[in-house]
Amino acid sequence: MTARAADLHQAPDYGRAFALWRAACPADWARYMRHPFVEGLRDGSLPQTHFLHYLVQDYLYLIHYGRAWALGVVKAQTVEEMRACAATVHALIVEETALHLRLCADAGIDLVAMQATPERRENLAYTRYVLEAGYSGDFLDLMAALAPCVFGYGEIGARLLAEAGDTPYRPWIETYGGAEYQAVCRTVGALLDQALELRLGPDWHSLPRAGQLAERFTMATRLEGDFWQMGMEP
Amino acid sequence: MTARAADLHQAPDYGRAFALWRAACPADWARYMRHPFVEGLRDGSLPQTHFLHYLVQDYLYLIHYGRAWALGVVKAQTVEEMRACAATVHALIVEETALHLRLCADAGIDLVAMQATPERRENLAYTRYVLEAGYSGDFLDLMAALAPCVFGYGEIGARLLAEAGDTPYRPWIETYGGAEYQAVCRTVGALLDQALELRLGPDWHSLPRAGQLAERFTMATRLEGDFWQMGMEP
Amino acid sequence: MTARAADLHQAPDYGRAFALWRAACPADWARYMRHPFVEGLRDGSLPQTHFLHYLVQDYLYLIHYGRAWALGVVKAQTVEEMRACAATVHALIVEETALHLRLCADAGIDLVAMQATPERRENLAYTRYVLEAGYSGDFLDLMAALAPCVFGYGEIGARLLAEAGDTPYRPWIETYGGAEYQAVCRTVGALLDQALELRLGPDWHSLPRAGQLAERFTMATRLEGDFWQMGMEP
Amino acid sequence: MTARAADLHQAPDYGRAFALWRAACPADWARYMRHPFVEGLRDGSLPQTHFLHYLVQDYLYLIHYGRAWALGVVKAQTVEEMRACAATVHALIVEETALHLRLCADAGIDLVAMQATPERRENLAYTRYVLEAGYSGDFLDLMAALAPCVFGYGEIGARLLAEAGDTPYRPWIETYGGAEYQAVCRTVGALLDQALELRLGPDWHSLPRAGQLAERFTMATRLEGDFWQMGMEP
Repeated sequence: MTARAADLHQAPDYGRAFALWRAACPADWARYMRHPFVEGLRDGSLPQTHFLHYLVQDYLYLIHYGRAWALGVVKAQTVEEMRACAATVHALIVEETALHLRLCADAGIDLVAMQATPERRENLAYTRYVLEAGYSGDFLDLMAALAPCVFGYGEIGARLLAEAGDTPYRPWIETYGGAEYQAVCRTVGALLDQALELRLGPDWHSLPRAGQLAERFTMATRLEGDFWQMGMEP
Repeated sequence: MTARAADLHQAPDYGRAFALWRAACPADWARYMRHPFVEGLRDGSLPQTHFLHYLVQDYLYLIHYGRAWALGVVKAQTVEEMRACAATVHALIVEETALHLRLCADAGIDLVAMQATPERRENLAYTRYVLEAGYSGDFLDLMAALAPCVFGYGEIGARLLAEAGDTPYRPWIETYGGAEYQAVCRTVGALLDQALELRLGPDWHSLPRAGQLAERFTMATRLEGDFWQMGMEP
Repeated sequence: MTARAADLHQAPDYGRAFALWRAACPADWARYMRHPFVEGLRDGSLPQTHFLHYLVQDYLYLIHYGRAWALGVVKAQTVEEMRACAATVHALIVEETALHLRLCADAGIDLVAMQATPERRENLAYTRYVLEAGYSGDFLDLMAALAPCVFGYGEIGARLLAEAGDTPYRPWIETYGGAEYQAVCRTVGALLDQALELRLGPDWHSLPRAGQLAERFTMATRLEGDFWQMGMEP
Repeated sequence: MTARAADLHQAPDYGRAFALWRAACPADWARYMRHPFVEGLRDGSLPQTHFLHYLVQDYLYLIHYGRAWALGVVKAQTVEEMRACAATVHALIVEETALHLRLCADAGIDLVAMQATPERRENLAYTRYVLEAGYSGDFLDLMAALAPCVFGYGEIGARLLAEAGDTPYRPWIETYGGAEYQAVCRTVGALLDQALELRLGPDWHSLPRAGQLAERFTMATRLEGDFWQMGMEP
């Protein structure tokens, strides 16, 4: 059994849309899941300079990613969707960035330095793609573009928590592999599945719209792969 | 046969979505089609002050309505959709406003006076509703909110051209009842039907989304009724 | 001293932009501050049916108003602006609506009934105006359109807390006149003043942009006046 | 005198904002103006495969760039701004793409092949950056992000028309160096200068906003440089 096949067999259960869209871009998803950056987190071989470079860019990423989830509040159709998106904004711009700030502070990088770091082109491409998808499309277009980040980090975190040996990146792994983040993935998966049914009915996967949304998911998955690659090139 | 039933039997053929959405809000559509303002255009009983008041507000309306069609260019999925929306922007902010400018000029109201007229609340409510529907939703939400204006004026124009006697409002009736505007209605109808199929497939009318879009159409139809009512209250 | 002059002398200190914009629309602001609906809250003469009708519409309003504050997160320029807007979204769609739900529940109106109530036209006009201002303009346009609601309820709450006698509307008055809501008003005032300086410098009030923003504030103030009027017409 | 200094001395007169923003990013502007891709157009040394690869990507670019100009119609403050943006949409999605279609057709690449070509990452980054700047900011943010493409092609076209010897890329050079396109640059320059004054007054360059807009211009200039680089890497 190849690594890729193995990877695709280990999909966590984050709902139906995730399962379908993930299966629609196997090569792109595998590149994202098994990128050398990820393997370097797992076995500890990733140089600290690469990790810190990635972490600062990811902090800048989370600001725009939080903005995109806030756009979800604006574009929601129900109060439940609004609340779910608003809670995610809070989790991103308060809780998740706390990890970044703490790990960077431990390495002597303060907030001012983080905020003054220029955004790398791979970072800009990804965040603007997601925001533009949300502005130009509707709630579903936005969710499809937001999904690979949430679910992919969940899948990587879960695998690495099970597989990782002695690695200095354990705090990172425990954040994304831990129960709290895994619950976020399931909640977002349910939000997404319900949003699809609410608008497109139970057979949404057979509509042309489903292909268009899967393309959004695929492109964001590719941009996640690019982001790891950027992490290797400080 | 009641007036309302008569009205619903005379639906022009502007495509499938129009037929379905029109049939989904019979009372609101009839209010829009048979409003005393419209009947006053037909039989010439509408006071000129009411007409000119309406015309100036409609000029202000067309500016925002043109902006909303431009948002269609931004939100389009295909180059054909972009071109169709861009052509409509041109038709609105160059050609259609020319009628308003000419009729107002004939009555001694110049462009500066028109642009300085405060927007009435019914006008503001309608245009901001359409623009917000477009921003917060996708291309289809925008089209559903734009549709009642295009099609309704076509249906009124066609009926009045057939029924109107001696009325000073013949130039207005000939604009909307004439071959050129009727062709615009059929073109927009085809654009809408194709856009629905492209995204939602041939059975789009059976999806929850269809009901949501019909609600957009209904609300814009109500706001058209309010706009006529505003015309009666200079 | 007339009532209007008295009103304008009692402006709470919610910052510089508020003071300037309030002073730029004295008649509209006075209509909003001293509307018969407000006086009916103060002296208890407002019929309960009017109040409950208003409260349900205000609940529907807060949903869209919360969406507009979420748009502030998207359009913010700094992390501090993002956090301030995100906190307001939370305050609106969790805390402030809790008052509405409780008061309505006390009167036997449940959440399902509230959400099923059709939005009144004055409500639609106002919320779509604010959202469209935010989408079509920038962060400042959005803030200028959001401001009259926050500050106006603060000013009314503060006055009524000082002036109100025996009235069944004391819980409402205590919510907006209380220390917590007054602190929100000062926080939003500071956010607004800082946002203006950050973009336009300390002399922003002398720029053409200042007039354009004051117009946004004035229009939203008028729509608040309309909203009270709607409250009188169940 | 160095090449860069020479380049900066030859700035065409496309207005005041262009002169200021160009001078604010000399290294990025020089990279865009004097990129090896441009020199290869001038002396004819650019391989045809590179040119055609660029041309197809540029066709895809123009679609999104046309959408962004349409967003200018939506975000305009005056009817004149609306008309200027609408005319540019037409020039882009009808006239300018005609050059691309013709040159590609001559090389045996048809429209279907062009539209089926995947968007390169540098292309995606640039267009989504511009659109997001327009959605999240106001008309000025959008114009600042749109400007480097219009003006830069004008400046390159004008120089190459004067300097180019025997090169197969003369039709391209004549398009952008020709009187018609140079007039477009001056028109857009005037639109931009007027839009800045209308909102920010005659001393707009001294406001913090000016620095924020110059940053938008600089980033779009960098993304233009990346686009040429992409052209060298089919």
